[in-house]
Amino acid sequence: MDFQAELKQKGERAKIAARKLATVSAAAKNQALQAIADALLSNTAAILAANVLDMEAAKGRNIPGPLLDRLKLDEARIKAMAEGLRQVAFLPDPIGEVLSGGKRPNGLLIQKVRVPLGVVGMIYEARPNVTVDAAGLCLKSGNATILRGGSEAIQSNTAIVQVIADAARQADMPADVVQLIATTDREAVNAMLKLNEYIDVIIPRGGAGLIKTVVHNSTVPVIETGTGVCHTFVDVSADLQMAQTIAFNAKVSRPAVCNAMETLLVHAKAADQFLPPMLEQFHQAGVELRGCPVTQRHHRAVKPATQADWATEYSDYILSVKVVSGLEEALEHIAKYSTKHSEAIVTSDYGNALRFQQEVDAACVYVNASTRFSDGFEFGLGAEIGISTQKLHARGPMGLTALTSFKYMISGQGQIR
Amino acid sequence: MDFQAELKQKGERAKIAARKLATVSAAAKNQALQAIADALLSNTAAILAANVLDMEAAKGRNIPGPLLDRLKLDEARIKAMAEGLRQVAFLPDPIGEVLSGGKRPNGLLIQKVRVPLGVVGMIYEARPNVTVDAAGLCLKSGNATILRGGSEAIQSNTAIVQVIADAARQADMPADVVQLIATTDREAVNAMLKLNEYIDVIIPRGGAGLIKTVVHNSTVPVIETGTGVCHTFVDVSADLQMAQTIAFNAKVSRPAVCNAMETLLVHAKAADQFLPPMLEQFHQAGVELRGCPVTQRHHRAVKPATQADWATEYSDYILSVKVVSGLEEALEHIAKYSTKHSEAIVTSDYGNALRFQQEVDAACVYVNASTRFSDGFEFGLGAEIGISTQKLHARGPMGLTALTSFKYMISGQGQIR
Repeated sequence: MDFQAELKQKGERAKIAARKLATVSAAAKNQALQAIADALLSNTAAILAANVLDMEAAKGRNIPGPLLDRLKLDEARIKAMAEGLRQVAFLPDPIGEVLSGGKRPNGLLIQKVRVPLGVVGMIYEARPNVTVDAAGLCLKSGNATILRGGSEAIQSNTAIVQVIADAARQADMPADVVQLIATTDREAVNAMLKLNEYIDVIIPRGGAGLIKTVVHNSTVPVIETGTGVCHTFVDVSADLQMAQTIAFNAKVSRPAVCNAMETLLVHAKAADQFLPPMLEQFHQAGVELRGCPVTQRHHRAVKPATQADWATEYSDYILSVKVVSGLEEALEHIAKYSTKHSEAIVTSDYGNALRFQQEVDAACVYVNASTRFSDGFEFGLGAEIGISTQKLHARGPMGLTALTSFKYMISGQGQIR
Repeated sequence: MDFQAELKQKGERAKIAARKLATVSAAAKNQALQAIADALLSNTAAILAANVLDMEAAKGRNIPGPLLDRLKLDEARIKAMAEGLRQVAFLPDPIGEVLSGGKRPNGLLIQKVRVPLGVVGMIYEARPNVTVDAAGLCLKSGNATILRGGSEAIQSNTAIVQVIADAARQADMPADVVQLIATTDREAVNAMLKLNEYIDVIIPRGGAGLIKTVVHNSTVPVIETGTGVCHTFVDVSADLQMAQTIAFNAKVSRPAVCNAMETLLVHAKAADQFLPPMLEQFHQAGVELRGCPVTQRHHRAVKPATQADWATEYSDYILSVKVVSGLEEALEHIAKYSTKHSEAIVTSDYGNALRFQQEVDAACVYVNASTRFSDGFEFGLGAEIGISTQKLHARGPMGLTALTSFKYMISGQGQIR
């Protein structure tokens, strides 16, 4: 079967599954999630055997170490996947919630009720745990899922989806609630992005290249996730010890993730006191420093920052540092270079705190805290399907409700217009 | 200036305007809306003179009557536009509303706050009143607007936007909150659809062709509006007099709009009693009838329906009619042909009412009422920017909140992760 036929068939099946799944009870979905978790554990050997095939193929193709690490499965990782599903089972079911409603003057009762999106397409890279995560969150929120993982993980993903699909069916879920695109042909992604008839939303998860491809080629609505050029601005009124602690955490605690700081902005009047110890701490921690001319005067390790640095998500132990004349210049810089993910100010000035939170256009705007908190679990959402950097539908950390829509249920007694 | 340069310049200006407009007070925005209403009235002569140029050009190009009617302005229509703006001024400002929030275990205070989308692109056809509507609703919700109206209305729209922009500036709004694409080059639409750097969302308003073009070519997120293949299902338990009243209203009260019924589904056991008077009433009202074989037996005027009929939005005095074996077949038919706009059941059976509302996947699902109520004003939203037929972001009638996003404001005391 060519991939066009495969996609069409999987789209049709997903649509049928979604229609049935929309009315399945929370109890039945939760039982299925537990059954899938059990099945992952009892099929660990088969999944690991498939993963070995992926790992061998990857080594033959000179795939870099960090990617190999993300691809590799072991018993502990499969246990973690199963545990994740059990946690999703314990979350409240978002479906059926009455969001608002009331009686109109003509007697019509209108209720706005939360419903699933329908069919969710996930396009992602080499991490097989995304397969389980996405399938679990979509099932819980009543959506059928079509998964397209990276070709490096095709054997692992095929084995995992087989386990999930079998366990779901045995737990009385509709057939085809979770499907994997079997072909590794790259053109299949482009074809998937045009399946408006069958897919309600596509969520890409992965590097900037993948996300750009999806955003620029999809005719299906997309939730853009990911890129974070996050700033921390240290105001002149800041508690400088607090500022140093927050900035260090924002950069160093996990530099590869999207909520890590990429640029540190420092008020000119705080620079003399703040920068020397701060830069030394970063330097000691192995962070490469790139700064404006003023910053360079404060530490010998600071290389000159280029124009491109201000717009770069390093996702690494690299930091750009700029001394600014004050809040105004900080706001201008952020408006120009922010990817609207997470931005922070450290300040003791009430007016500046208020102004920063109101004027900065980003999903998460912090006062006196690390940008690293931008995360579904930290926000109390109980789960995370990704972090949206667009403004439509979902913004910031996305929990289960990001995978839902709503409909109006209108109850009348013969009203006409 | 070529249109690429024009678009880029207007995009940059809109982005600057949006940043300022996001923090303008409700009182100031309302004053500006009143000032714009006043200015439309006091510039009636200039707007009508521009409209005469459009009308003359249109007549020279053999443009059909209904389109000419939509294009034509007179004093009453300009008064109605101004009145619409005053009504928008009286609506509550959605911006700044705290949607949810609370304190996390680590002491972080997280608030989810409603904010504008930013820059809204509107692409529409020949009705100059959309220019005023869109500008007013976007201004109220704190968004900068880039308008692209139909080329037939270019003189009218240019005059109207000039009046709006001047009045807004005099009322201390940021410059460039409302801009019109001046070129009538069709390629400008395609270029606008790729302006991801400057436009946060594009809303198309118009016929199926325009909407399809926008959905299939835009890399900017789109809110799809419009197409309605709406059904009414008459159950065997229905009050048949009520059913006849509702079905007649749903088809005949305004056939050209998207919430009008296109297909009537009738329970086989109700057909003998229900169909003859119903079909006769439609026939008397000049409605062309296209039916399944069973329907044809009930009235001489019923022509055979083809497969294509079930999927067609007539937007006219044409109705397709099908006799179905019961609720199950009705649900199947609707799942297959519905555009997910508005669907209705007429029934006295509690279980069937519940099942229809829960299982039908559409923005608005009615029991015992006409689909014609799918409308922002009828739903009590106070305004309408269009009716969304997608599930992402907004669904069904869209009021001011459909033009908003949110952000998380996080207030800490030095928390790190």
